[in-house]
Amino acid sequence: MRDVKWGIALSNPDPFPSKIRIFDTTLRDGEQTPGVSLTPENKLRIAKRLDNLGVDVIEAGFAAVSEGEMEAVKLIADAGLQAEICSAARGTRGDIDAVAKSGADSIHLIIPVSDLHIEAKLKKTREQVLQITRDMVKHAKDSGLTVELSAEDATRADREYLKKVFSTGVEAGADRVVACDTVGVLTPERSYDLFRDLRQSLDVPVVSVHCHNDFGMAVANTVAALRAGANQFHATINGLGERAGNASLEEIVVTLHNLYGLKLDIKLQQLYSISQLVSRLTGIYVQPNKAIVGENAFTHESGIHTQGMLAHTSTYEAINPELVGGTRRLASGKHSGSAGVRATLSAMGLTPTEEQFAELFQRVKAAGDKGKIVTDADLLAIAESVLGLSKKKPIQLLEITVVSGNTVTATASVRLKLNGKEVNGAAIGVGPVDAAINAVKKAIQEVEPINLEQYNVKAITGGTDAMVEVMVRMRKGNRTATAMGVREDIVMASMDAVISGMNVLIAYNGNGAPKPS
Amino acid sequence: MRDVKWGIALSNPDPFPSKIRIFDTTLRDGEQTPGVSLTPENKLRIAKRLDNLGVDVIEAGFAAVSEGEMEAVKLIADAGLQAEICSAARGTRGDIDAVAKSGADSIHLIIPVSDLHIEAKLKKTREQVLQITRDMVKHAKDSGLTVELSAEDATRADREYLKKVFSTGVEAGADRVVACDTVGVLTPERSYDLFRDLRQSLDVPVVSVHCHNDFGMAVANTVAALRAGANQFHATINGLGERAGNASLEEIVVTLHNLYGLKLDIKLQQLYSISQLVSRLTGIYVQPNKAIVGENAFTHESGIHTQGMLAHTSTYEAINPELVGGTRRLASGKHSGSAGVRATLSAMGLTPTEEQFAELFQRVKAAGDKGKIVTDADLLAIAESVLGLSKKKPIQLLEITVVSGNTVTATASVRLKLNGKEVNGAAIGVGPVDAAINAVKKAIQEVEPINLEQYNVKAITGGTDAMVEVMVRMRKGNRTATAMGVREDIVMASMDAVISGMNVLIAYNGNGAPKPS
Repeated sequence: MRDVKWGIALSNPDPFPSKIRIFDTTLRDGEQTPGVSLTPENKLRIAKRLDNLGVDVIEAGFAAVSEGEMEAVKLIADAGLQAEICSAARGTRGDIDAVAKSGADSIHLIIPVSDLHIEAKLKKTREQVLQITRDMVKHAKDSGLTVELSAEDATRADREYLKKVFSTGVEAGADRVVACDTVGVLTPERSYDLFRDLRQSLDVPVVSVHCHNDFGMAVANTVAALRAGANQFHATINGLGERAGNASLEEIVVTLHNLYGLKLDIKLQQLYSISQLVSRLTGIYVQPNKAIVGENAFTHESGIHTQGMLAHTSTYEAINPELVGGTRRLASGKHSGSAGVRATLSAMGLTPTEEQFAELFQRVKAAGDKGKIVTDADLLAIAESVLGLSKKKPIQLLEITVVSGNTVTATASVRLKLNGKEVNGAAIGVGPVDAAINAVKKAIQEVEPINLEQYNVKAITGGTDAMVEVMVRMRKGNRTATAMGVREDIVMASMDAVISGMNVLIAYNGNGAPKPS
Repeated sequence: MRDVKWGIALSNPDPFPSKIRIFDTTLRDGEQTPGVSLTPENKLRIAKRLDNLGVDVIEAGFAAVSEGEMEAVKLIADAGLQAEICSAARGTRGDIDAVAKSGADSIHLIIPVSDLHIEAKLKKTREQVLQITRDMVKHAKDSGLTVELSAEDATRADREYLKKVFSTGVEAGADRVVACDTVGVLTPERSYDLFRDLRQSLDVPVVSVHCHNDFGMAVANTVAALRAGANQFHATINGLGERAGNASLEEIVVTLHNLYGLKLDIKLQQLYSISQLVSRLTGIYVQPNKAIVGENAFTHESGIHTQGMLAHTSTYEAINPELVGGTRRLASGKHSGSAGVRATLSAMGLTPTEEQFAELFQRVKAAGDKGKIVTDADLLAIAESVLGLSKKKPIQLLEITVVSGNTVTATASVRLKLNGKEVNGAAIGVGPVDAAINAVKKAIQEVEPINLEQYNVKAITGGTDAMVEVMVRMRKGNRTATAMGVREDIVMASMDAVISGMNVLIAYNGNGAPKPS
């Protein structure tokens, strides 16, 4: 099946269940990411966004784990959200009672089912676990909860025993069952086989899959389970979770949408911004080459690719960045082709002659060969020099002073020349860097409203006098510019980057960042 | 099939070809990651490590792209490595001649085959592309190169035409063919179908798969192709590459080894260190929840998990960290269970009573609820308080003030209490952080000569108000202690880390920072 000329052949959408439920566990399994700890307030912020995104179930936490967790689940259960609010629990009365007390709609009741977990961890027998399943499902139902019975380590368990646990739970009143690939050992073909078997042999409205990404196949394993008839999946934003994380929600939904042509009740265009929020609140950064939401997911540098993108955006993109709320970027560097560099220059409003372009292009490549990243600001500097333009630096930094400490609010003052006129500004911030950049923005904002869209610092290793590399993306209206600063002093490196990015945007009024048609 | 008691059921290893060749493209497609630029010397460093790892082919670069690329391919081709050295090329005489000149053993000859690429990008016809294929393969063979003929965008191309291009190339002398999933639109089932067809209809010794990770399924798609009979795969370390990157080499080889039981001629235990090297030299960080090589891939925090790990390490690990040269870590935090915390305390030489433990454990949870990461130093502080050991904080920060800017030398002054006595110090530095830490060292150095041995800051992403995580290792004589500071303000985060590290060293004369077993 071919959807449009030049389009991709879709995989067969037929085998999927008509309704696929999305169970988001960013706030439970995702929050179990080592080193992550969200306050109840921040959990609520994320829950509201998930609700707006359109997930069916929000697992808000693990009520029995701590007082803060109990508070978080309560807060989210009371927030009047559309989604069903769920809490995880082990198979103990205490855990179940905590869920009931939290006001959650449903319980994610986790029962270990592999011999390894039963014998080595629980020090129990299979029979005892069946009894626990029966009793605890009953107790949860008696407590008024919708019960999602989860078989932990199901993919290393004896298949017949796994089904026995599920049928025992369903008889006791469980509303849904989940087979967990707790340590991520499924393969797509084994996932398909397992879930077809479960779907055929169990009489329960919802069979769910829960995958971990230890081998990098969590998305494929989840999709295979859905093709086999599972009608719910567990996933997290940014693929957060224990160890290598859970299946990534954004990757699964975009796969179902773009590669299988399924319609989902999810606002795909919110994926990028929710990914950013989760990354910021958890402190777990998203690698640039992460699918769907990574900084490079829609960035093109190499010559072959930018040339193709300028001819037709589908050439090197199977996902339109706007679909998920992202933006396309063309970058310059040693792999750049002439078409891409020409497009970037034209976006700045610069039109070199053929001869000038040849020299300029040569210099871009040479800078790249030295291991240098060529930002928009670098490209402009090369172009100015080759084109014999006066070096336009609308903003010149005359003076910056920053004071910070533990008994003083970080405060910065700047004096700048903006288009030859002296301006100044002062601002506070959460630290010296934030204060410094706020002061610059304040000094120029009436004349030039420019925002800092992205601020990244490469990991600093060695000592406190190590080089600090700051990369920024600045935005003015619909135009963006990248720039970099490298210094031993993080404040000055940040100032260099921000001011050179601003200078690109102010100096040249082209038609903005190149947008391949 | 079950390999051992409690082990995982392996997926069927039968369908795989007996020898699977590994074609590493970290230095070509990986280096095309936007913002990455490796010098020839750094490419050579990585190539040597890849050779030692045991890959069959190293694609060293794209000789025609720039002078530096040519130099890099030459350098690697001349290094006397075991692996075959390859260079990429487009289907032009100029590109092919550059590869021949570089001294590479083989050429990765890239020919676009989808109508989209042929019509929109190349502005050519299918017939013309067939002619180019015929002529360019011949020219490359005449130039003495082993020819790997690569069909770009093969997964969006007409299947019959794709096979025509391959058979034309093979007739002209191509030694190997590659079907590229250039924009990552394969699914495992479509990959299986495509490669079975290619394997059955082509008479060529090597059929290779080349996957991109736009939907997060590159590893599963690669494995599906190999199950279908492809006998070579392209991959990169850390999954670097255009956009969301290529298939990750480490994820594929560990999947084949652990989940399918295949033997590969690869030194798996080098994967972690080569991942670290590539990350450092490219500047592209690996997210903590990245499979196999992420910082959290073998880290366990939550109670259920640490308890399980202490009972049997397979409980929550399908991959032994030692297999890939990684290490297991147990972390403390709000999800901690009693077993894990007890184990960490016992490693510190602390043995609380049951009652003390209950309180201590409660406090660890409470710290976690406030969004705090509980480091070993934090745990030690809680233990001191609960066990009624005198709360040893030899150093207390009373006041710190830092001034920096472009017209002032970064200067800091501190007032501290050291063992109850007020001391102070002032110092300059290369920036505000350096000045602040120098001032603290100065204030205490006569009484307590402690040095900062290691200072690391995690990559900062998002904005200038993002959390900054500083990790330090301090040294006093032959003892060291690690500590961490997390704040929005990099100066204060650094102060927190340094002072808590100093406090551990001054307060305890034992064996330094606790090391969880």
